[in-house]
Amino acid sequence: MSLPLENFFKQVDALSEPFIDRLRKAVAIPSISAEDERRPDVFKMGDFLASELEAVGAQVEKRYLGKQPHKEHLDLPPVIVARYGHDKSKRTISVYGHYDVQPAQKEDGWATEPFELSIDENGRMYGRGSTDDKGPVLGWLNVIEAHRKANIDFPVNLLMCFEGMEEYGSEGLDEFVREESQKYFAGTDAVCISDNYWLGTEKPCLTYGIRGCNYYSVCISGPGQDLHSGVFGGSTQEPMTDLVRVLGSLVDTHGAIEIPGLMDLVAPLSDEEIATYSGISYSMNNLYESLGSTTAVFDNEQQTLMARQALSCQWRYPSLSIHGIEGAFSAPGAKTVIPAKVIGKFSIRTVPDMQPDDVDELVFKFVKEEFAKLGSKNTLEVSLQHSGKWWVANPKHWNYNAASRAAEHVWGVKPDLTREGGRFTSILSISG
Amino acid sequence: MSLPLENFFKQVDALSEPFIDRLRKAVAIPSISAEDERRPDVFKMGDFLASELEAVGAQVEKRYLGKQPHKEHLDLPPVIVARYGHDKSKRTISVYGHYDVQPAQKEDGWATEPFELSIDENGRMYGRGSTDDKGPVLGWLNVIEAHRKANIDFPVNLLMCFEGMEEYGSEGLDEFVREESQKYFAGTDAVCISDNYWLGTEKPCLTYGIRGCNYYSVCISGPGQDLHSGVFGGSTQEPMTDLVRVLGSLVDTHGAIEIPGLMDLVAPLSDEEIATYSGISYSMNNLYESLGSTTAVFDNEQQTLMARQALSCQWRYPSLSIHGIEGAFSAPGAKTVIPAKVIGKFSIRTVPDMQPDDVDELVFKFVKEEFAKLGSKNTLEVSLQHSGKWWVANPKHWNYNAASRAAEHVWGVKPDLTREGGRFTSILSISG
Repeated sequence: MSLPLENFFKQVDALSEPFIDRLRKAVAIPSISAEDERRPDVFKMGDFLASELEAVGAQVEKRYLGKQPHKEHLDLPPVIVARYGHDKSKRTISVYGHYDVQPAQKEDGWATEPFELSIDENGRMYGRGSTDDKGPVLGWLNVIEAHRKANIDFPVNLLMCFEGMEEYGSEGLDEFVREESQKYFAGTDAVCISDNYWLGTEKPCLTYGIRGCNYYSVCISGPGQDLHSGVFGGSTQEPMTDLVRVLGSLVDTHGAIEIPGLMDLVAPLSDEEIATYSGISYSMNNLYESLGSTTAVFDNEQQTLMARQALSCQWRYPSLSIHGIEGAFSAPGAKTVIPAKVIGKFSIRTVPDMQPDDVDELVFKFVKEEFAKLGSKNTLEVSLQHSGKWWVANPKHWNYNAASRAAEHVWGVKPDLTREGGRFTSILSISG
Repeated sequence: MSLPLENFFKQVDALSEPFIDRLRKAVAIPSISAEDERRPDVFKMGDFLASELEAVGAQVEKRYLGKQPHKEHLDLPPVIVARYGHDKSKRTISVYGHYDVQPAQKEDGWATEPFELSIDENGRMYGRGSTDDKGPVLGWLNVIEAHRKANIDFPVNLLMCFEGMEEYGSEGLDEFVREESQKYFAGTDAVCISDNYWLGTEKPCLTYGIRGCNYYSVCISGPGQDLHSGVFGGSTQEPMTDLVRVLGSLVDTHGAIEIPGLMDLVAPLSDEEIATYSGISYSMNNLYESLGSTTAVFDNEQQTLMARQALSCQWRYPSLSIHGIEGAFSAPGAKTVIPAKVIGKFSIRTVPDMQPDDVDELVFKFVKEEFAKLGSKNTLEVSLQHSGKWWVANPKHWNYNAASRAAEHVWGVKPDLTREGGRFTSILSISG
């Protein structure tokens, strides 16, 4: 280890108490973006973050995004942007994080108070947001502070982007990033987001890809209004009968998508890619734990092989899920209505090299053909509700090499290189 | 026509103004059983009915049924029971009707004020409840009054049962009738209910049967909790995928039930029964009007034959309807969750001679077999939610003959003898 790096780590250790104290203060602010009455706390957390950033020497701006769509009585919390360093000879890294959190109550099953940072006998810290995502956000402040205290030149320019609505759909963020990509974030050489999953609990992950999502509606209608099944059952063609048949033709129990041509759009698996799976720590038990059951598509006979298959299916092959039906009876109990118009919802997780438009074309054609086979007098409409494209990066890019070396240095183990199946949040598309 | 009958009809004509006036007063009371805030009006209507019954000489009792289940802040309106005549040499007829109504607002599309009786240039009367069911209920008072005024002996003993919750599931009525069948209603020789449909608008109907209903749940579960489709789509077996396949195996677009053996339970069609269809007034247009569309199971090529087929399917063959799915996404918009547990609901309308238990057995066996074919690791449970048996009477019974002759006398046309597909209300099972 170089002398400057050694000095840096000494400072990190020396500063661990103030670092933990800063996290404790952050965890204590219940900045829950999904609860209207907590919105002032989200703003309070934004203020706290901005003043801490200023204290470590960053140039901070609060960018306000206006009113919350569909909840116009609420202001959206600001995106906190900050710059640290402006040296043209250095690379510029844009980093993202979020300072809001999910709801949490002790009654939900927490062993400790969720909005108090608790430390157990092994030094593990518990508290809402400690990992998702206040801890990683404050990590950037810690790294700046340790460099300053150690009197070491910061090796890159940092552009920071911390939002306060991640747990509620990142309202307003897409537009903000698009608008600023060639302004505030101009000159970005690489992006780093610390807000993802590890596969287990022992080894860090570097994510280099994520699946896309094409979301479809299949609407089948017939009668002019809902009908009583006692009176009309047997004399009218029922939209629900047609819909379950159409939905039933899309995918089988084992996850095989039955839309002809769809799998041909998937990039072939290369030897190089196969090699990336070999070092990954993952067992079927990891999957069973996540599912809360053993109803995996795969069997358990050849543990390693199957785990690899499970993982690769989670991120490198498409999948089709049927989410539900709008317009039919969905409450507990019994209701005997024949619904006049029902809308089935399903989505396809897409992967390289599937072009969203090609997927649409195959889906529309197949759904119409399957419906035509029924010989029904009802009316079918199939449409795309929204689509988000997959993303994949080159895991051999210098940014990944740097991240991998850093992670190995700290954790003593090479991190897993993973893709994710699909994210809750949208993807930042800052050009780099 | 016999002299007494002639005198009776003269009195009916003479009394038409007070008869219409009584109906006007009844329509003006918005006795909507489904709206909490109208409950006092339902009681008011019960009081009005009881005092009018007393005025024509009936012995009236109000029978209170206690609090409304699941809405304990509301009292159930009383069943108004009344006796007219107690002559052991006469037959005793029990009659049923209801004095509550459905909600109605001018804005719903009414041409006139719903709670004002309006009379058009052809003498047709409009007003909520004028046919369903205040008019038919007051008809019993009218017939008593006209006999009295004409000084003619009333030919039967009448036992009347008028409830105030018919439009809200007849809460409490089943228990009341069961309890009183050998008490208040003891000695009943026949029952008459005036609260059903005509097939068109020109010809009265006498109903002699109704289909039953077996209502089923199919629950499929797998994962321990709802999963994110982006992350887990492709690696878990999805209960929704299995459920749409199982539901899709039950019935085809043309209404054919695919459960082996089920149709074998249906009583064969006799020549005698075929003959009853020949005189019935019904066209495909009647059906299209009711459906609000032309998505009938039948084609229109041979009008008469097909109309007969349509009708016979409405009441003499079973039908299977899929009503909806509990536990899946059912709102407008897009949600990408993989539901962990979904419950499909369907019902079979049953007919003579299908025994409900035999139907259950065939359904359970078929659903389990279809699920087994999928080779799924998910768990299936199929169960009966409730069943109500079909009912059919002999349309040649003296009660039907009397009703048919009376209807023909007034309308100048033989009434249609029909069955119904299934009723909204439960069936009165007074022994007779």
